[in-house]
Amino acid sequence: MVKIVVDCFGGDHSPEANVEGSVSALKLYSDLHLILTGDEETIKKCLEGKEYDNSRLEIVHAPEVVGVDEKPTDVIRLKKESSMMKAIKLLRTEDDIAGMVSVGSTGALVSAAMLRVGRLKGVVRPAFCPILPTMNGGIVGICDTGANVDITAFHLVQYAIMGSLYLENVYGVKSPRVALLNIGVEEEKGDELRKQAYKLLKDTKEINFVGNMESRDLLTGKYDLVVCDGFSGNVLVKSTEGACLEMLKMLKRDISSSVLNKIGALFMYKMFMKEKAFMNYQNYGGSVLLGTSKVVIKGHGSSKATAVEKCIEQAYRMELSEMSPKIESALEKYEDIIIEDLISK
Amino acid sequence: MVKIVVDCFGGDHSPEANVEGSVSALKLYSDLHLILTGDEETIKKCLEGKEYDNSRLEIVHAPEVVGVDEKPTDVIRLKKESSMMKAIKLLRTEDDIAGMVSVGSTGALVSAAMLRVGRLKGVVRPAFCPILPTMNGGIVGICDTGANVDITAFHLVQYAIMGSLYLENVYGVKSPRVALLNIGVEEEKGDELRKQAYKLLKDTKEINFVGNMESRDLLTGKYDLVVCDGFSGNVLVKSTEGACLEMLKMLKRDISSSVLNKIGALFMYKMFMKEKAFMNYQNYGGSVLLGTSKVVIKGHGSSKATAVEKCIEQAYRMELSEMSPKIESALEKYEDIIIEDLISK
Repeated sequence: MVKIVVDCFGGDHSPEANVEGSVSALKLYSDLHLILTGDEETIKKCLEGKEYDNSRLEIVHAPEVVGVDEKPTDVIRLKKESSMMKAIKLLRTEDDIAGMVSVGSTGALVSAAMLRVGRLKGVVRPAFCPILPTMNGGIVGICDTGANVDITAFHLVQYAIMGSLYLENVYGVKSPRVALLNIGVEEEKGDELRKQAYKLLKDTKEINFVGNMESRDLLTGKYDLVVCDGFSGNVLVKSTEGACLEMLKMLKRDISSSVLNKIGALFMYKMFMKEKAFMNYQNYGGSVLLGTSKVVIKGHGSSKATAVEKCIEQAYRMELSEMSPKIESALEKYEDIIIEDLISK
Repeated sequence: MVKIVVDCFGGDHSPEANVEGSVSALKLYSDLHLILTGDEETIKKCLEGKEYDNSRLEIVHAPEVVGVDEKPTDVIRLKKESSMMKAIKLLRTEDDIAGMVSVGSTGALVSAAMLRVGRLKGVVRPAFCPILPTMNGGIVGICDTGANVDITAFHLVQYAIMGSLYLENVYGVKSPRVALLNIGVEEEKGDELRKQAYKLLKDTKEINFVGNMESRDLLTGKYDLVVCDGFSGNVLVKSTEGACLEMLKMLKRDISSSVLNKIGALFMYKMFMKEKAFMNYQNYGGSVLLGTSKVVIKGHGSSKATAVEKCIEQAYRMELSEMSPKIESALEKYEDIIIEDLISK
């Protein structure tokens, strides 16, 4: 049995979407067991009328909810009765629970996971690694997109190793092509961090480093994994998402502005629906926090049921991939560098 | 007469596009005088058969071309006979020349402009400020997008002041809404640089600071100017450009994949053409380098004639706006902070 905790509150469509997504996920895998945290009465109401195997679904009551703007330190200290902190506590204390999914506050989740769940041996800082679809039908992972904003070049090497193992073991990408996000493709481009990272990445035998990537090439399918500091990674992913969304809106507005366009759109209905589905991030699950000792998945705050279901699926597949020992053994060779890196700060 | 130098080499479509764009620009303004730098014979060949007022067009012979990958320091020291360095030299030595346009190597242009053209009084570092169209029909400026990658919070304040004056004086945007690029909208978000910058920007009376912006909101029209370090600004602009281009490609590919789609597209022909024009960066000129003592415009490396024409137009309008003394007087109040900032490093 694979046991996963689902934090049922904190998102724009919570708890309905979280509960509905959980019920759908249960139907996908007969060896999946879910524990839902949050206000018991509310969750029960959401479950009413739904069909599911109730021997594989538990509710753990948590009366409080973590708000989006709450300070992570306050959440950890004062919101112990929240659905998020209860989920974290279960993950920490129950050996047979494999992972958790939350669509709540990113800051609180990262801090609580770091402090309470802990890191795999050798990992300096866990990092987010969302997956985006590329225009040639493939995928691209981006690591990190906001877990850490102040980093050293060696963190980027760890992201490259962890991200490569993730893509290989969970998505079946053979020898992922790893690129460093930079402002130009030439080796000497960028700030000190990037120049140092380039040299380190080139010498890292565990990965298939292919050089610098300019952000305009993210969706082209030329790369499988992009490593970056959390600040620019966040900018990269959100501006790509924003540009796609704004273009869809423009298309929609322009189509409804004339009868001719509406007729044309009818002919192209299937195509537009396919493209809309392709660009809908709800279909791609959430961001895995790579490097924690148990699986932690952060779904988009605006996740609907499908997105929650995909997040649970991701957690399930990560657990089955048995990636954690692989990450620990790959990082072991770099122990000396980690110690050096920590001392130099 | 407004005199502007056009570096005719170094772009993907040079020198044809540069010469054609120059000829078109001459037709727009009867008081515009252009000086074209580059191989004289080649430029003359490009001019053959074109109609233009030759009393307002000069050629200054420059036999060498700066390659995209050349080291800026090598270009400045060794490529004095290149079209770019000749243009820079003219800008520096001829008092009556107002500005220059180049579509060549960004690194070389920034370095040469900083060293040879010089900065306005009070400016610590000149910064790029390209303009993008927003989805509600407006524009948004982004400063900086790559001139400086290692900066302090005070640089961001200078970008905000210079960018606001640029948008007001050249584009007529009243009291531009300035945002700080960050990974969340709350005041305490981001790294140390962002936290410091937020505080400084809030206290800067010369600007209309409206808070943090997440990159997904760049094209929504909620902001007029976004300030950021050159690294994340570069990521922001290029990923937005990349996402739009990749979506257009997808649309094109999907349309040609079926007869029904092709019929539909015919009905929507006008709409698609309008949208294509809207998203074509060739129609929006280049990036102004704000803070240099004379106007320097960097066009996209893939600029065609229209883009070059728009760059020349931008240079012309910047000169007429008489912005330089306004920037110097706005920055004067911050002299003490600049000195403090420089000493602390």
